[in-house]
Amino acid sequence: MRLSRYFLPVLKETPADAQIVSHRLMLRAGMIKQASAGIYSWLPLGYKVLRRVEQIVHEEQQRAGHIPVLMPTLQSADLWRESGRYDAYGEELLRIRDRHDRDMLYGPTNEEMITDIFRSYVSSYRDLPLTLYHIQWKFRDERRPRFGVMRGREFLMKDGYNFDLTKEDALHAYNRHLVSYLRTYERMGLQAIPMRADGGPIGGDYTHEFLVLAETGESEVFYDSAVTDLTFGDREIDYDSVDQCQAILEEFTSRYARTDETHDAAIFDRDVPSERQKSARGIEVGQIFYFGTKYSDAMGAAVQGPDGKQVNVHMGSHGIGVSRLVGALIEANHDDKGIIWPEGVTPFHAGIVNLRQGDAATDAACDELYKGLAAKGLEALYDDRDERAGAKFATMDLIGLPWRVTVGPRGLEKGVVELTSRRTGESEEMSVTAAIDRLAQIYGV
Amino acid sequence: MRLSRYFLPVLKETPADAQIVSHRLMLRAGMIKQASAGIYSWLPLGYKVLRRVEQIVHEEQQRAGHIPVLMPTLQSADLWRESGRYDAYGEELLRIRDRHDRDMLYGPTNEEMITDIFRSYVSSYRDLPLTLYHIQWKFRDERRPRFGVMRGREFLMKDGYNFDLTKEDALHAYNRHLVSYLRTYERMGLQAIPMRADGGPIGGDYTHEFLVLAETGESEVFYDSAVTDLTFGDREIDYDSVDQCQAILEEFTSRYARTDETHDAAIFDRDVPSERQKSARGIEVGQIFYFGTKYSDAMGAAVQGPDGKQVNVHMGSHGIGVSRLVGALIEANHDDKGIIWPEGVTPFHAGIVNLRQGDAATDAACDELYKGLAAKGLEALYDDRDERAGAKFATMDLIGLPWRVTVGPRGLEKGVVELTSRRTGESEEMSVTAAIDRLAQIYGV
Repeated sequence: MRLSRYFLPVLKETPADAQIVSHRLMLRAGMIKQASAGIYSWLPLGYKVLRRVEQIVHEEQQRAGHIPVLMPTLQSADLWRESGRYDAYGEELLRIRDRHDRDMLYGPTNEEMITDIFRSYVSSYRDLPLTLYHIQWKFRDERRPRFGVMRGREFLMKDGYNFDLTKEDALHAYNRHLVSYLRTYERMGLQAIPMRADGGPIGGDYTHEFLVLAETGESEVFYDSAVTDLTFGDREIDYDSVDQCQAILEEFTSRYARTDETHDAAIFDRDVPSERQKSARGIEVGQIFYFGTKYSDAMGAAVQGPDGKQVNVHMGSHGIGVSRLVGALIEANHDDKGIIWPEGVTPFHAGIVNLRQGDAATDAACDELYKGLAAKGLEALYDDRDERAGAKFATMDLIGLPWRVTVGPRGLEKGVVELTSRRTGESEEMSVTAAIDRLAQIYGV
Repeated sequence: MRLSRYFLPVLKETPADAQIVSHRLMLRAGMIKQASAGIYSWLPLGYKVLRRVEQIVHEEQQRAGHIPVLMPTLQSADLWRESGRYDAYGEELLRIRDRHDRDMLYGPTNEEMITDIFRSYVSSYRDLPLTLYHIQWKFRDERRPRFGVMRGREFLMKDGYNFDLTKEDALHAYNRHLVSYLRTYERMGLQAIPMRADGGPIGGDYTHEFLVLAETGESEVFYDSAVTDLTFGDREIDYDSVDQCQAILEEFTSRYARTDETHDAAIFDRDVPSERQKSARGIEVGQIFYFGTKYSDAMGAAVQGPDGKQVNVHMGSHGIGVSRLVGALIEANHDDKGIIWPEGVTPFHAGIVNLRQGDAATDAACDELYKGLAAKGLEALYDDRDERAGAKFATMDLIGLPWRVTVGPRGLEKGVVELTSRRTGESEEMSVTAAIDRLAQIYGV
């Protein structure tokens, strides 16, 4: 994309009402614009990151064997009356009345609707196990929305639901979700630590939250420092293997890691050597639940078991905050100049800065680079505006593309351009062709 | 995808309340489930088609230089009060009140919101031309929703908005949209004819609707039969070329083609030879508008022109009904056995029918085919259930994959499988390798 034809409304001033760094940087980098309290428009740069995050979530869910559907945003109140949550949910539930005076609501989650889908079609244990998920906009009418997309009212979430014949099978689904979430966050360049959590309004005997450590996190967390050494890496997982998924759950959850809601100082002291006892702040970016037959009992979601008897299915629900992750990624990856995108989610693979727009040789080298990257499937943001170098560098630093190629007449005399890492600030001179090859290597294309 | 692990709840009975064929077939093929009146869940098969349609729309919009954003579903009533539409829009506008008693609405369209984005950031003619679009769920509280996703209340739409300095520039944007829409529909295997239309509540001096001819269409249309001979084909278009876009507009719109709203019998008789005068029914799948400064006047969206004077920008809006297209595609592509997907939008590239599940050689040949197709980037739906051949064929015919490969012990003795076209019903015997190669060739991979 040529910047002269793009829509990247960066702000020079720091917005006064944005309290946390991700909110400030998303506004300054022209990623979002507030539409109403807690409701945002995603401008071109922000939309690209949102889609990259969404795509990784889709890929990892499908790798785990989970099947995508798409449920609507508006739901009938009747379904929620069946589960008892229509009255219980409180003021965060946005209640709506349509032109025929029917009670509707903007879904904050979909346990009822997915259970209704399940009970409408599935009647035999032979169709299990089954996990359906969707990525759809949700609404929670927060009393005091703040922190930008980190705590918005309209937010994009992946929520998945497993249906299993037995508790044992459902716990395998739980473990499978834990494994797939670990992979998902790591692909985005995030370390998200599974922590024992509280069931909250969804309920649940087994539940873990995934937290990204960041100074601005809303939760206080306590953990054994050994958990931050764990990495998933590129191990191959057979998601059908009960033993493999169980082993990974144990590897990642056997050490102490809890939020303030479930923290127990006595157990912390007993189980964790004092030099490994850490407390920090964390941002919740996902949660998994096993809640047994809570919804299948209330809504009559049963299958015929192998013995011919009707069995209410065991369920769980599993969420990743897709729009919130964009904020969390920035909280974990920035410096005083701006955002530093991990390669996995960057909106453009590289930026090209033309130091002398209008100079024939410089323009030609930029074009060669731009087209050469495109031929490798890499998308560059080419700053072809007639602006000072300083302004171009400041914009690139602010929007945080991980790699910048600087092209100017002086370098070209020596046959080189400059490749700069946003994270380290280190630069290296090389030919245009070498820069293309290096970037292709970095992105594995 | 192996069918034994998929969620494809096909129905044996024809649903009684579905009046049109696309609605019946989408329910029978397990593509959608009604959640409330005019609101649908997209089940796995339907969701895949929806995403393919969405992807084609994205690609063609970006090819035309239009930039994706994402605006929220809920909007503040205040914006609509600025344009005067909050009161004017009528009962189809779903009005919502949040917990703080603020008036909100579920957006049926986004002229106000995009104009607000524009005026917040753009102040110079140098940043024009600009076209922003998004694909987002909309809501229109239809009094009597019907025809499944063809006339739902919650629906997915691509809506794009151009901002230009002059009427002349805005008409080029109009033409560019017309060209990109022609390409979009053709890639989906649809012929959509641009017809002179009525401005309706959005207003507009220039507007065309795109209609797909189908017996069940909601509009009566009148046209010169010569328009159905026009095809866009694979011509290369420079979307920046005013002349090229104008020439295509003229080629596709100079012959008589109007809906009943704008039909003029006298002009029809005067301009079209009687043997070419046709009337039929049509389904609207898109509409483009140029409406000048209607919203920029009302909302103060001005830029500084080259002469230093403030100019209210010329705008247009341009919509494609993404969810509705899935229904329209079926209306135009089906027979008495079920759906017949065009290759461009099919949910799976091919179906594999195993005639003797459990027979080692047959299972092995199916596996080889399945993996061979995957290696080419082709996704097969492999019916590996322990079912009779007749039931497997009926399911494949119903869900309408364009190509089916039938694998059985008798053929394998001769070293062949059978490749069958859903559209023609014709079959051909060939080796597994040849079937993979043929499908790769058909899909151009």
